[in-house]
Amino acid sequence: MILTVTLNTALDITYRVRSLRPHASHRVSDVVERPGGKGVNVARVLAALGHEVTVTGFAGGATGQVLRERLSATPGVTDALVPSAGSTRRTIAIVDELTGDTTQLNEPGPQIEPAEWGAFLDRYDELLPSASAVALSGSLPPGVPVGAYAGLIRTARALGVPVLLDTSGEPLRRGVAARPDIIKPNAEELAELTGSHEPSRATQDARRRGAHAVVASLGPQGLLAATPEGRWRATPPARVHGNPTGAGDSAVAALLSGLVEQLPWPDRLSRAVALSTATVLSPTAGEFDRATYDELVDRAVVTAHTLTA
Amino acid sequence: MILTVTLNTALDITYRVRSLRPHASHRVSDVVERPGGKGVNVARVLAALGHEVTVTGFAGGATGQVLRERLSATPGVTDALVPSAGSTRRTIAIVDELTGDTTQLNEPGPQIEPAEWGAFLDRYDELLPSASAVALSGSLPPGVPVGAYAGLIRTARALGVPVLLDTSGEPLRRGVAARPDIIKPNAEELAELTGSHEPSRATQDARRRGAHAVVASLGPQGLLAATPEGRWRATPPARVHGNPTGAGDSAVAALLSGLVEQLPWPDRLSRAVALSTATVLSPTAGEFDRATYDELVDRAVVTAHTLTA
Repeated sequence: MILTVTLNTALDITYRVRSLRPHASHRVSDVVERPGGKGVNVARVLAALGHEVTVTGFAGGATGQVLRERLSATPGVTDALVPSAGSTRRTIAIVDELTGDTTQLNEPGPQIEPAEWGAFLDRYDELLPSASAVALSGSLPPGVPVGAYAGLIRTARALGVPVLLDTSGEPLRRGVAARPDIIKPNAEELAELTGSHEPSRATQDARRRGAHAVVASLGPQGLLAATPEGRWRATPPARVHGNPTGAGDSAVAALLSGLVEQLPWPDRLSRAVALSTATVLSPTAGEFDRATYDELVDRAVVTAHTLTA
Repeated sequence: MILTVTLNTALDITYRVRSLRPHASHRVSDVVERPGGKGVNVARVLAALGHEVTVTGFAGGATGQVLRERLSATPGVTDALVPSAGSTRRTIAIVDELTGDTTQLNEPGPQIEPAEWGAFLDRYDELLPSASAVALSGSLPPGVPVGAYAGLIRTARALGVPVLLDTSGEPLRRGVAARPDIIKPNAEELAELTGSHEPSRATQDARRRGAHAVVASLGPQGLLAATPEGRWRATPPARVHGNPTGAGDSAVAALLSGLVEQLPWPDRLSRAVALSTATVLSPTAGEFDRATYDELVDRAVVTAHTLTA
């Protein structure tokens, strides 16, 4: 199985309103609730691609219970979340029906107690030996040490389990130093890590800092990969419009599935671009359109990339 | 005990954000959850005034469970809510820290099934004989018949239990025809019921439609009461600034407590004005400031009111 770690899970709630106006009162016409947090999104996409996935991290309180109920109803996904006394956070996406714009409200994560963090580490140690790969995704809730991902990467690598890291800021900086197999920063995260706003140089720099492979997601410009086997740029066959929510998580799922299937890098990148694009084009945020994916996976353009001076 | 009926209960969630901007992403700095719905608010105030209160209506799903846990932790309040399969709605109040403005998002209520409505009617019949007064408060969730309040009023009156109705639109119109002891419309609800925007005429008209006593809440202008014993206007001693959320529910609680204590109408109205004002002045929406209430209750100005031509 593939293991995804989401320390700061969320219950993602989407509201539709006719038009969002500050200081006004709004009737919500439609409410959708979905288990969320980056690693949970990655798990859902991996399961849809036919992989067995186990989800760990924390869940607590009434929102955590709803999240677990919904997760257990997802075929192919095994729930190995660790209970926390604090409540799992909610995120609210308010979709304005007139403009199509989304306004986002993110609750803070729950405080994780030292005993809960210890229980998570035990669970991680139990799960790792059966994992073909592990993804460490998203922010850290309060109480989790900032070097948490670095430790989890070292444990995985000691057991020979390949590990992908997708986070930002100091947890990313410390994680990279622990030599993960793949990191998948977006342009902003990559610039923050390396100090360089030039993606080609920055991906090389991130490799020097410790990441074996760097796959930068550059929005509509596609992916830029720097790996031990070469450098590539992967772009969708045409520019698309839609909702980019979850496109990065879909790219992570594609990279992991390509890794466990031992695909060559260019094929992993085609898959990642096709899956991201099919996610942007899906009417539901974070879902991917299967037909679009099947059509695009052979049409993504992957070209060898030379470092420009 | 005093019985409050809240068919469309809610979990009221308050978020603080630095500045609400449509189409942006916001970190919520503070999350407060409270049992809500008008009748639940009335019960909380009545309990704080020292009355024994029983709360009925519907609660369901994960939000209903949180609401019931919080309610059971409120001294003086007894939970007699009836389970619904549909989830209790949430309301989200987003407080902008820069402007102090509040933006409100209200989820739709759950669909109430016919068997659930039947179970509620049985519960209401069980509770009524021990009630010294009953308040029927707020909107009706989908599935509850529009004439629901009219039926509940007739049942209460047949048992000699005084009943206060605080709702709007068609449920108010039908409820008034069933001859409730008191209605407490705001200016807009009163105008919608009577077709008159002149509060003095409109309160008289609402009495002719069936309400024994009409207490209109006119915001900063205080209360206008038309009763079998006379007409009064009640105003706070000074104009106050603050958050009016829950001020109407506090007025209802004051009117009910004055009714069961058999106070003369002017004393009931002083209490209602003082409690509403103390609610507006409280830093927490829907709570009242005890010291302010104690000070204002003897200073509210209640004057006999003559119908102007």
